[in-house]
Amino acid sequence: MDNRELWELLGMDLEKHDEFLAPIPALATELFFNRPNRPAAMSYFDMVLADVHGIRVKELYEKKQKGAKIFASFCVYVPEEIIVATGSVNIGLCAGAQFPISTGERVLPRNLCPLIKSTMGFKLDRICPYFQVADWVIGETTCDGKKKAWEVLNQYIPTYVLELPHKKEARDYRLWEEVVLEFADFVEKETGVEITEENLQKSIEVINNKRKALKRLADLRKNKPSPIHGLDVLLINQLAFFDDPERFTGQVNQLCDELDERVNKKIGVAPADAPRILLTGTPQPLPAWKIHALIEKAGAVVVGEETCTGERYFRNLTEPAENKEDMLKNIAKRPLQINCACFTPNSGRIEDIVKMTENLQADAVIETNLQFCNPYAIESFSVSKEMEKREIPYLRLETDFSDEDQGQLLTRVEALLEIIRS
Amino acid sequence: MDNRELWELLGMDLEKHDEFLAPIPALATELFFNRPNRPAAMSYFDMVLADVHGIRVKELYEKKQKGAKIFASFCVYVPEEIIVATGSVNIGLCAGAQFPISTGERVLPRNLCPLIKSTMGFKLDRICPYFQVADWVIGETTCDGKKKAWEVLNQYIPTYVLELPHKKEARDYRLWEEVVLEFADFVEKETGVEITEENLQKSIEVINNKRKALKRLADLRKNKPSPIHGLDVLLINQLAFFDDPERFTGQVNQLCDELDERVNKKIGVAPADAPRILLTGTPQPLPAWKIHALIEKAGAVVVGEETCTGERYFRNLTEPAENKEDMLKNIAKRPLQINCACFTPNSGRIEDIVKMTENLQADAVIETNLQFCNPYAIESFSVSKEMEKREIPYLRLETDFSDEDQGQLLTRVEALLEIIRS
Repeated sequence: MDNRELWELLGMDLEKHDEFLAPIPALATELFFNRPNRPAAMSYFDMVLADVHGIRVKELYEKKQKGAKIFASFCVYVPEEIIVATGSVNIGLCAGAQFPISTGERVLPRNLCPLIKSTMGFKLDRICPYFQVADWVIGETTCDGKKKAWEVLNQYIPTYVLELPHKKEARDYRLWEEVVLEFADFVEKETGVEITEENLQKSIEVINNKRKALKRLADLRKNKPSPIHGLDVLLINQLAFFDDPERFTGQVNQLCDELDERVNKKIGVAPADAPRILLTGTPQPLPAWKIHALIEKAGAVVVGEETCTGERYFRNLTEPAENKEDMLKNIAKRPLQINCACFTPNSGRIEDIVKMTENLQADAVIETNLQFCNPYAIESFSVSKEMEKREIPYLRLETDFSDEDQGQLLTRVEALLEIIRS
Repeated sequence: MDNRELWELLGMDLEKHDEFLAPIPALATELFFNRPNRPAAMSYFDMVLADVHGIRVKELYEKKQKGAKIFASFCVYVPEEIIVATGSVNIGLCAGAQFPISTGERVLPRNLCPLIKSTMGFKLDRICPYFQVADWVIGETTCDGKKKAWEVLNQYIPTYVLELPHKKEARDYRLWEEVVLEFADFVEKETGVEITEENLQKSIEVINNKRKALKRLADLRKNKPSPIHGLDVLLINQLAFFDDPERFTGQVNQLCDELDERVNKKIGVAPADAPRILLTGTPQPLPAWKIHALIEKAGAVVVGEETCTGERYFRNLTEPAENKEDMLKNIAKRPLQINCACFTPNSGRIEDIVKMTENLQADAVIETNLQFCNPYAIESFSVSKEMEKREIPYLRLETDFSDEDQGQLLTRVEALLEIIRS
């Protein structure tokens, strides 16, 4: 079965999909394939990117034929171990594109985060094969935009909403634990597979191994010179959400082996004195990669991401346990250690930024905010104050999914690099 | 002590405050005092409006001198009975103005709800005597904007945040009950007054009486012709948040007596066949009154508000109970019956709109959305679908606190009225 046959089977709008995909190869070549000095082990991730709507979709389709269910999620708070334990698949669809936004705006307000409008547009336009192959969307209540958009999306694809609380008091832990246990029941019912001590222990191990590999990769960027471009890590972090976890982990570790050698030989992707940037802020779906691209084009290196497409996803592990009940409790406990701006207060995030700046020897912090994301936009007031207090150079950028602001963004990034270099 | 002395004592910026207040008398005269055919009992509310930064502020100041605390809140979910039980004062500051918005934007993003920016600006500019006289702000987690803005506001005035959950499952009721009980402890500690069976029973009665009076007023608008303008009721509903509850209740009931007579004599504020409008949507602070004003100027009558400045505030009563524990539980239970778009799902609100349209014999529903309010903006998709299904004429308006869109709003309202009349 070739890709087009598959896409047709999934009820996609082939014509629109062609139109959407058309500019991608040139973009991938420019951003990734033609960039010099990349690790050889990037070839696996490049291959996945080159056929991003093909190979993996076919795998998912075949898994479905064998009875598995596909759960599409949009947030690092979704407890993927529970899904993986049943032999079914969790795919993180937190990608995005400018293309389907106008369609999303037919059912959502214009002045809403581009991620949400784009997600909705992908479903309505039928141009995302991952969405088409999915049985369920697993939403959450992290922000007003998503919380309310699930109500609309549920009219097009069944959507299950996890209630993530606003605070991190003991009572919030209790509520969230109950939510996670109920989710486990739901997944069992939907997949027809019982969650057992054995399959859960295995899935915790599989997902922890993925997190450990990503953390190993992140830690390698502490080195001067950095052995890898931030842009390559961003690609890998994004693929972490929807590739097969075991295969993916193997590939990341293979890359890390190569990077270990680079570090030993002091080989880097930029001179040792190149400005080192820590990125913080909202999630970084594909159109937001322009920020990494222009920072690194300007001669700096992005050495870390305090974002959901970075540390927040993989830093914390699920603690192993002896029995199923405790495993589920630990699965619930882990995500509440993530410091997202959806919580109040969220001072832990500022501590994370400071610690990462030190550990990664970053020279400056760039905060990026997707337009209309209130939680991060408002929290940036506290972030900027703390950066000022600590005399850490700091720049705040607000952007959407369009390309039109690249010149303006570059000017501001270059001004920051000027300060660092002087 | 005259007003200026008082304002100076409260640390206000007198010059800026003068500038802010300057256009208010002309506005009040145009909107209220000069409008013909108003009930005589409106004179009390007109008097409060005319000296809105005077009399009541002085009362609060004097209460403080005698040891009371002033709690400023911004949401109908704040359990005011608890504060009132201790002899202290809850004042709802959910008003707003265009004037302080630019100041609010110094610490908050521009693309944020005007209500929140204006609130922040009022505090930073020191031009709201209620804010200045307040000891505490009682915030809540109803929307991303407020939830995160409290973190900023807390740097200028102590801010206590009530965690309102996202759903209405049994576990959410448990969490909220715990939050309310903790709030009662906090209020006891801050005021130094013990909450007892006696003072709590009394405060439940006082606040329930206020709600009953407002409900009585709301129900009088069912009559054809309507005995009162929507704009007058809006003024009263707004004053309900910060006037003395017992005095206020007496005045509302006195007005209702007069309206009963009008109904008996079939006296109305517009012809019996004037189009009747139900308003729904976001809260309606002072600058949003322009919508009511232009609807009624165009010859229609607003007969109800499915908003926080309307039914949501007063429809549900706190059930009386035998002991303190049960009273507090009932105080916690009541607000979760309010159908705010901050909940998911929130289908109860659509049922409310339908029921109110029928009960009030409304000819059309106008939904108003304060710019950048995501919860209501997204939910309007479901509201409009339901209105279409039921063939109820429906218009959605988005507005901010500026005056510049009045012409455009009027054109759209007139087009709707044209449809109703034809």
